[in-house]
Amino acid sequence: ERQFVGLEQIENTARNLREGLSGSLRIAALPTFNVGFLPRLVAAYMKDKPGLEIAIYGSISSQVVDWVATGFCDIGFAQYPLDFPHIDVEQLPSVPAVAVLPEGHRLCGKAVLEPADFVGEPFVSLAGSTQWRYRTDALFSAARVTRPIKVETPLSMIACSLVASGAGIGIVDPYTAAEYRGRGIVTRPFRPEVLYDIGVVWPAGRFRSPLALGFVETVTAAIRDLAAASETAAAQ
Amino acid sequence: ERQFVGLEQIENTARNLREGLSGSLRIAALPTFNVGFLPRLVAAYMKDKPGLEIAIYGSISSQVVDWVATGFCDIGFAQYPLDFPHIDVEQLPSVPAVAVLPEGHRLCGKAVLEPADFVGEPFVSLAGSTQWRYRTDALFSAARVTRPIKVETPLSMIACSLVASGAGIGIVDPYTAAEYRGRGIVTRPFRPEVLYDIGVVWPAGRFRSPLALGFVETVTAAIRDLAAASETAAAQ
Repeated sequence: ERQFVGLEQIENTARNLREGLSGSLRIAALPTFNVGFLPRLVAAYMKDKPGLEIAIYGSISSQVVDWVATGFCDIGFAQYPLDFPHIDVEQLPSVPAVAVLPEGHRLCGKAVLEPADFVGEPFVSLAGSTQWRYRTDALFSAARVTRPIKVETPLSMIACSLVASGAGIGIVDPYTAAEYRGRGIVTRPFRPEVLYDIGVVWPAGRFRSPLALGFVETVTAAIRDLAAASETAAAQ
Repeated sequence: ERQFVGLEQIENTARNLREGLSGSLRIAALPTFNVGFLPRLVAAYMKDKPGLEIAIYGSISSQVVDWVATGFCDIGFAQYPLDFPHIDVEQLPSVPAVAVLPEGHRLCGKAVLEPADFVGEPFVSLAGSTQWRYRTDALFSAARVTRPIKVETPLSMIACSLVASGAGIGIVDPYTAAEYRGRGIVTRPFRPEVLYDIGVVWPAGRFRSPLALGFVETVTAAIRDLAAASETAAAQ
């Protein structure tokens, strides 16, 4: 009897591992995902997997890549461009950046914002060397709009908090903006679209566990939902 | 007349620089400060200083130290231990860590939590190699309390989001907890106290500008307020 239970348990464990219900998963993610978007998906993913042990590490994208390349983490989420050695990259659905305004700002009356709306407004700039920032700046240059910039930061969460505190208005990634909506800031679609691209970072040429693959599917579905909600907001 | 205005402007600029109303300030801070605490202080600090240009960089503490040591940033805020070369460290007031629970959790009925309250509760653990984590774990060991740990992360913001999503309960730094209070989580004082220590990181042996010194004073005052509020909460 005792031996039979033992075998059954071994069989269960083996099946759980095979079906991705058991095992461990070490995730690395950029700040944009960590304010709330990714932890919520992790909590939901854990619910029906009692044997799963998860660790989440967070830092800037270059560090995320390093953690995956060295094998410290199984998967990572980082911002493009992602041309590093020892990793394979899989693009996630693009979602456009959004404008963030302090509650009660005159521009909250508009459904969609465009460069011309920003004339003379103090701007909280997303500094740093991302292609995304250059694309945003190019749109304003093309529209010949000058934005007085007194404060800059590469982190959307800092930009959102600064906007909420009245330091200016900004354009940030949609993941972070969603977390700060209703906490002193209002979000609006920005046109023309500036797509914000995140990639899944895998260690090059290594086995991808059902647990990791399943989690990436969960994340992809959630991003599609966010992209659809963003399109709906822009159409209104 | 024209020359007189010119001289007056030069004098104004010189006075503004001398009095710390003008110039630039590059700040680096650990994630704990970036969710909202530090950006709010920066926005307030900028208000009466029209000539001030600020940049805020955020990453894990070791990177913060690196940015200051190399001169990329003027000041940094990082978690102890801080025994690195090329920097001077000044300790900020300690504030005790707090317990975080999902809204509606049975432990929300208690005014103060202690290790015995955590028996058998799924625990969201702050992983990583901080002394702070070892001290927390030691308290639970001393009280012979075992906490089932299914998920761990070194970032308090991730821990707070996981708790809000029902993954468990945890003990996190007071700065991040304050930002997530009312967004799915409830905070409670935790006893015995586990102090959370942040240091101001200065480049070793370099000039400290009035702008930087003034900002550190602002941060110190805000931390004293948080510590006082934390004592009041524990006394209730």
